[in-house]
Amino acid sequence: MQFGVIFGGVSYEHEISIVSAIALKDIIEAEFIFIDKKRDFYLIDKSKLKSKLFSSGEYTKMPKLELKKGGFYQKGLLKEKRVEFDVAINLVHGGDGEDGKLASLLEFFAIPYIGPRIEGSVVSYNKLLTKLYLYHLGINTLDFQLLHKEKIEPLKFDYPVIIKPCHLGSSIGVSVVRDESELSYALDVAFEFDNEVIIEPFIEGVKEYNLAGCKAGNFYLSKIEEPVKGEFLDFEKKYLDFGRTEEVKEAELVPGIREQMIESFKKLYEPLFYGAIIRVDFFVHRGQVYVNEINAVPGSLANYLFEDFLTPLQALARNLPKPRAIPIDYHYINSIQSAKK
Amino acid sequence: MQFGVIFGGVSYEHEISIVSAIALKDIIEAEFIFIDKKRDFYLIDKSKLKSKLFSSGEYTKMPKLELKKGGFYQKGLLKEKRVEFDVAINLVHGGDGEDGKLASLLEFFAIPYIGPRIEGSVVSYNKLLTKLYLYHLGINTLDFQLLHKEKIEPLKFDYPVIIKPCHLGSSIGVSVVRDESELSYALDVAFEFDNEVIIEPFIEGVKEYNLAGCKAGNFYLSKIEEPVKGEFLDFEKKYLDFGRTEEVKEAELVPGIREQMIESFKKLYEPLFYGAIIRVDFFVHRGQVYVNEINAVPGSLANYLFEDFLTPLQALARNLPKPRAIPIDYHYINSIQSAKK
Repeated sequence: MQFGVIFGGVSYEHEISIVSAIALKDIIEAEFIFIDKKRDFYLIDKSKLKSKLFSSGEYTKMPKLELKKGGFYQKGLLKEKRVEFDVAINLVHGGDGEDGKLASLLEFFAIPYIGPRIEGSVVSYNKLLTKLYLYHLGINTLDFQLLHKEKIEPLKFDYPVIIKPCHLGSSIGVSVVRDESELSYALDVAFEFDNEVIIEPFIEGVKEYNLAGCKAGNFYLSKIEEPVKGEFLDFEKKYLDFGRTEEVKEAELVPGIREQMIESFKKLYEPLFYGAIIRVDFFVHRGQVYVNEINAVPGSLANYLFEDFLTPLQALARNLPKPRAIPIDYHYINSIQSAKK
Repeated sequence: MQFGVIFGGVSYEHEISIVSAIALKDIIEAEFIFIDKKRDFYLIDKSKLKSKLFSSGEYTKMPKLELKKGGFYQKGLLKEKRVEFDVAINLVHGGDGEDGKLASLLEFFAIPYIGPRIEGSVVSYNKLLTKLYLYHLGINTLDFQLLHKEKIEPLKFDYPVIIKPCHLGSSIGVSVVRDESELSYALDVAFEFDNEVIIEPFIEGVKEYNLAGCKAGNFYLSKIEEPVKGEFLDFEKKYLDFGRTEEVKEAELVPGIREQMIESFKKLYEPLFYGAIIRVDFFVHRGQVYVNEINAVPGSLANYLFEDFLTPLQALARNLPKPRAIPIDYHYINSIQSAKK
């Protein structure tokens, strides 16, 4: 199975996506397709896939590609050549990749892909929609308040609170606010990145756990890890995190908690995330499990959480959701035409 | 202002979109771009834009287009030629147009457009997400039950109920079920079109009203019409409806109801539907206003509901939401590179 990893993209997480791709290149057989800041596509020579290739602009010397029906094409002297892969992997974090754009492009141009479909993208990328979806399923998630940039209302929670842009991932623009004096700066920071922010109570010392997986026939679930972190994961730590090779330690959990996480994972996965390997971030507080976030394009596909990552990846590639076949037969127009005669 | 109307698409409502385009061609200055069932693009000669052009396959003799950065291009002998328009109009009803795909394509390729953005598309196209969004805003909508094709549960409502595919518009696959004997057939019909269906109580003699509009600086709202209908609008009636030229009669409403509709319209419009002309379908029952449906790409843009359609259309074209400028400056990679030195 040959994969086509798509990474980069116009996103605050552009650089994280590059790091993700670097982490995957030694793990899977793949072509690597980069979306640059102008949204041009480049076929990246795997042996040169290093972060400096992008920051230096050197990647522009590699072959430029065009996205068309069925794939990515490289112009040749006589005819164009398709980049050969069986299944694309969406590895664009944040905007372009997680907001539904890349899913749409790949579906429109009939390219099979691993990654969230359009609805799964939109629901997981928007923290308000994530909350509404979880409420609907009866899955615990922290209470929240939504603020619009143009309509700031008084906080409904006591301090400390955590402030997050409604649409980003990777902790970008996120602040913990301990008292009123810190609020307006934290809001300014979050509104730099988004017109809407989500506010939640910040629970001191809450335990956080990550579980990744997918459904391909049956469910393939990773280990549950308690990530090592400071107050919360910061941007630079991810550079180290995605490339981890040491074995992940299965989290120690009191009885029942693991089962609750797995149950919530399965419930929220189906059918919205068919086709994707997602990572769900849980909180555990006073014996209650809460879903904190759904990452539909997790960093380096959370490969480090799996004992054997290639098995679920390949199973998923063979079990992708099929687009519905819609007959377009001009039945109504024909019936009106014949009625006119 | 020159428009580029995009219509057709892979959708159960492909033919409705053709009718929509025909209805618009005498109203606005536009180029017409057709997406056929293979998802090829064609530039349609406006003087030949009739339903038979498509059912006969004759459209394939017109110039084929390619979608690329900045627009749709026609191959020429020496160089390619861009189809000239200022703003695209998404007139693809149902799949491709309303599910977020077309919004994604147009944003990715930096083509300004009138129509719902990706999130507005996904939320209005999925009746479950519409309900969750309306609940969140505190806007009345009928209670519902969601059934999955693979997990059919007992009805939670008394008969009669109405059964709708979760994702379609234009009454396709919709049935009113008056007793148990009709249920399984109605479910079969709906599951033909979708893996999820929404069930609502069916209210005999409920009043239905349509209100269209957009925000472009201020709100531009249409008349409120009580559509003439049988049990519900059927597919063929739309052919007549979109092309209406006689003046629409402003609905007679008891005091307060109009104001409630307008208030709900404005509340649900912002910010999710910026950039779009939407039509909201309301129910009024026992003095209560309910939102039944949000049509983010309404038939022929609901032009017939406006006294002066060109004013809001042009105002909207001048006031489209701007994509956020995301700096990609390799700040983190550069800082890691320099730390390594």
